[in-house]
Amino acid sequence: MKKFAVILAGCGVYDGAEIHEATLLLLSISKQGATYDIFAPDIKQHNVINHLTGAEMPESRNVLVEAARIARGKIKNLKEYDPAHYDALVLPGGFGVAKNLCDFAFKGAACDVNADVKAAVVSTHSLGKPIGALCIAPVILAKLIPNANITVGQDDETILKIKKMGGKHSATSHGQVIQDEKNNVFTTPCYMLDSSISQIYDGAYNIVKAMLAKM
Amino acid sequence: MKKFAVILAGCGVYDGAEIHEATLLLLSISKQGATYDIFAPDIKQHNVINHLTGAEMPESRNVLVEAARIARGKIKNLKEYDPAHYDALVLPGGFGVAKNLCDFAFKGAACDVNADVKAAVVSTHSLGKPIGALCIAPVILAKLIPNANITVGQDDETILKIKKMGGKHSATSHGQVIQDEKNNVFTTPCYMLDSSISQIYDGAYNIVKAMLAKM
Repeated sequence: MKKFAVILAGCGVYDGAEIHEATLLLLSISKQGATYDIFAPDIKQHNVINHLTGAEMPESRNVLVEAARIARGKIKNLKEYDPAHYDALVLPGGFGVAKNLCDFAFKGAACDVNADVKAAVVSTHSLGKPIGALCIAPVILAKLIPNANITVGQDDETILKIKKMGGKHSATSHGQVIQDEKNNVFTTPCYMLDSSISQIYDGAYNIVKAMLAKM
Repeated sequence: MKKFAVILAGCGVYDGAEIHEATLLLLSISKQGATYDIFAPDIKQHNVINHLTGAEMPESRNVLVEAARIARGKIKNLKEYDPAHYDALVLPGGFGVAKNLCDFAFKGAACDVNADVKAAVVSTHSLGKPIGALCIAPVILAKLIPNANITVGQDDETILKIKKMGGKHSATSHGQVIQDEKNNVFTTPCYMLDSSISQIYDGAYNIVKAMLAKM
């Protein structure tokens, strides 16, 4: 049975992992006969956003502890990740990817990637194993994998920053997956486009399908 | 287009709404050509559980604010719910149902139901519209709808309490839905059974399908 490692950035679209993308990615893996372990870095969230009002809250939360909500407690510190034990690595989106896993939300093309996330992506890539990313998460692959061809949908501002990092971009619509054969990298836009939850499932299902075909 | 009202109990299996059940319920509604609005009561959570360790955290969170994470901000105060505007009402599970929406987790058969939740269920039932509940949420229907025939799977302790409240119980396995024709009540066990995420989707999909057939 093929096994995915999934990296979460917290729990909630505005400060963590996007919940629908994360959940529907897990469903897509399960539905296609594969299995998964879930990881998150043990770090403080950049901030806590009230998802009702959009305002920042005077609170402090931990990415691993909050991501455990999506994982129902079955989650590991990303420091424990060993690519030798998995067939693929995949990151759902959410603003937490751009605020916790890296600082793309603030520094754009000049962003730094969290050391544990960087180690996970680089080590998996060096073994030639497939890496997938949904929504905004592909920016991390553009930063870490030279010349990666990725998609974040059709957002001009983000696409410009990807090109500044040396990445290539292919525009996509709902459910489409861009496969970079050379780098074994897979990306799909999900909520980078205005989407229904069914369209998010299409994207998640299709990226898992494309990745499984390369394992 | 048929429209569901969905009531969430927060965000996270141990102190709020179960995230997979809630997300896969929304997906099931969307996939079957219907639509939804999401509601939650504007109340303090009973407690905050660290989902990594299971320990209680010295924090205070609000059910509506946290449920907004699953809803991506598109959520309404349950006080605004009017059954005249919806074709059905449905509640996913999670411990938050038994700790925030009612106090079944502490008082069992003698539990009280939050006033807004009670008003929503009773008003919808009085119009004869279908009401659905997943996982532990059926205990609220047993409490509020006399003689309701429901399922929470196969957990003997919970079943005993349901019978004490005057409810009837039908044992179920993964993905099965119990339909109480007389009361127009639909229930399915989801994570009350040890389940894969695919089995949760089966249950969510099947309960939405059964409810749509009665609209």
